Amino acid sequence: MSSTTVATAPAALPSIRGRVDAVLAAFVDARARSAAEHGFPAEITETLRGFLFAGGKRLRPQLCVIGWQAGGGGPVPAPVVQAAASLEMFHTFALIHDDVMDDSAHRRGRDTVHRSLAAHHAGRPDAARLGINAAILLGDLALAWSDALLHTAGLTPVQLAAAHEVVDVMRTELMYGQYLDLCATGQVRDDVEAALRVARYKTARYTVERPLLLGAALAGAGHGVRGALSAYALPVGEAFQLRDDLLGVFGTPQVTGKPSLDDLREGKHTALLALALQRADASQHRVLRRLVGNPCLDGDGAASVREILTATGARDEVESMIRIRFVQAVQALEEASFAPAAAAALRELARMATERTA
Amino acid sequence: MSSTTVATAPAALPSIRGRVDAVLAAFVDARARSAAEHGFPAEITETLRGFLFAGGKRLRPQLCVIGWQAGGGGPVPAPVVQAAASLEMFHTFALIHDDVMDDSAHRRGRDTVHRSLAAHHAGRPDAARLGINAAILLGDLALAWSDALLHTAGLTPVQLAAAHEVVDVMRTELMYGQYLDLCATGQVRDDVEAALRVARYKTARYTVERPLLLGAALAGAGHGVRGALSAYALPVGEAFQLRDDLLGVFGTPQVTGKPSLDDLREGKHTALLALALQRADASQHRVLRRLVGNPCLDGDGAASVREILTATGARDEVESMIRIRFVQAVQALEEASFAPAAAAALRELARMATERTA
Repeated sequence: MSSTTVATAPAALPSIRGRVDAVLAAFVDARARSAAEHGFPAEITETLRGFLFAGGKRLRPQLCVIGWQAGGGGPVPAPVVQAAASLEMFHTFALIHDDVMDDSAHRRGRDTVHRSLAAHHAGRPDAARLGINAAILLGDLALAWSDALLHTAGLTPVQLAAAHEVVDVMRTELMYGQYLDLCATGQVRDDVEAALRVARYKTARYTVERPLLLGAALAGAGHGVRGALSAYALPVGEAFQLRDDLLGVFGTPQVTGKPSLDDLREGKHTALLALALQRADASQHRVLRRLVGNPCLDGDGAASVREILTATGARDEVESMIRIRFVQAVQALEEASFAPAAAAALRELARMATERTA
Repeated sequence: MSSTTVATAPAALPSIRGRVDAVLAAFVDARARSAAEHGFPAEITETLRGFLFAGGKRLRPQLCVIGWQAGGGGPVPAPVVQAAASLEMFHTFALIHDDVMDDSAHRRGRDTVHRSLAAHHAGRPDAARLGINAAILLGDLALAWSDALLHTAGLTPVQLAAAHEVVDVMRTELMYGQYLDLCATGQVRDDVEAALRVARYKTARYTVERPLLLGAALAGAGHGVRGALSAYALPVGEAFQLRDDLLGVFGTPQVTGKPSLDDLREGKHTALLALALQRADASQHRVLRRLVGNPCLDGDGAASVREILTATGARDEVESMIRIRFVQAVQALEEASFAPAAAAALRELARMATERTA
């Protein structure tokens, strides 16, 4: 259930990242001061700060701002930046719990949150367990605090109500998407549609569509704009996930930053694997079932799996699915009449999502 | 870190429980329908429904309503009932995650949520792990949904902003309180103040003060009323926790519904234990250190611990701490000028919190 690696965000909005990070830093600082006043341990906010600023492309906040512009919102006021930042805090929650569920050791080139909280308590016999439990709590805090960011953003009551409607759907969909992903992982199956459903909820809707719609909702955009954003977001998001699945198996670890055996060892249920299972002959089928989801898979085994993914045509088929979705997204953009800056950023994102190598 | 057993709620407000439950049932039904429309698995909402309606005294919603009345709010309108119900959904989140952290097997006389989700996936080799991960997600959903309940309650913008201020503090305090509790559990120490701090955040503030203040905030109550509610809530909440600590060791399992060895085996850091450690002679000290926090503790060992808790005077001292807090709470009530119904309910709660046997 490892989370999607996020590509570099569109360059069309260079100033937003700094503003989002400033909001996040000020918020965490304030929470740290308040914790200190109550005599609460500092490691909670310190760990959160370390995680937030160790990396992350701020893709969801940027998409929120693009949605704001697509919805005709004009220059980006501070409340919209803070609402966008709340998406990053929410994503922080999602990643912390995701890493607990997967028992991942590393994220953003450092220890995951549960590992680093366990290290903080090194010396206690129950340090590992305490690290996991503290990370569950810190994730819970990040979820609660994403709400605090939204609420103190200075939105109008109408904006806040509109934002909450989008945010509620986004949260619910992500949790269900994660649950579907948990249930599918480790079950080697040839069900392409099931893999695409997870991609739709965990990536297309959560990462692309809902952030765009949040921005559009804040701008008071009507049905037309929102429909056009969804028509763009869903194929881009699916393409993004399909590219991620290919990179997870065929990518260069030095470029992707992600070990190329993890997805295979975990038995991640992807459209790529489902297609290969559909097309495999009996002997290829046996090899895939033996190796995929096997935690002891080695480099030779991975090479055999890659060979079958290629020989069955599954790899080419996924490339073709990505191309189709790219075309759909570009068409949706052409049919929409977004502000030029927003359209340019969305076009760039579609290109990156489909062509990226990391 | 097992959660406080909640006593029967004040009888002064009999009609609220039904209204709160109706709101919760309608909400879960709507979420279940929406999940079905999206083809999401039904076990998520089914498990939540089963947990919500297997028990629970709705103490926090009732206190919210008492706070509303103390604040001069009059008859309880539907938006206030729904805001009160959002506290129960939040508490559901807290209990689900608490049980995951403690790896508790039972709650409300049934399997805990992670156990029952594991049972749902029985047959999978990773069922236990999947149950835990799914319970983390279901807890996350309950937290997000507590927010959805608050937001769709139909509060005015002024009420919503006031509510969010209280709710934000409540959530943050609870998470820190849980973290302090996690860190203290299993560490046998004679620090009474540390135990009282956990009681203050996890019970006094979370269970009593913040629900009262939420109701008062919804009624637009001023500083005077809010200060009086806090002056009442803190001693009552601490007394409540101190009584809980005594019942956890000396209570009759048939009455408390809680095995009388759990707190001792877990090594729960309580004021009772800290006082005993302060007063113990060398040999009593050795016995406490050997037996408390020992997962293999048996009935004989528990009897030895109980004997020391009594012989050192720690048990009597805790009884006296409860009495002092009861008096403080009643004094606070007498100095306040709450509506008679609210004052009566609060007086009854203070009595129950301090005298209860379950």
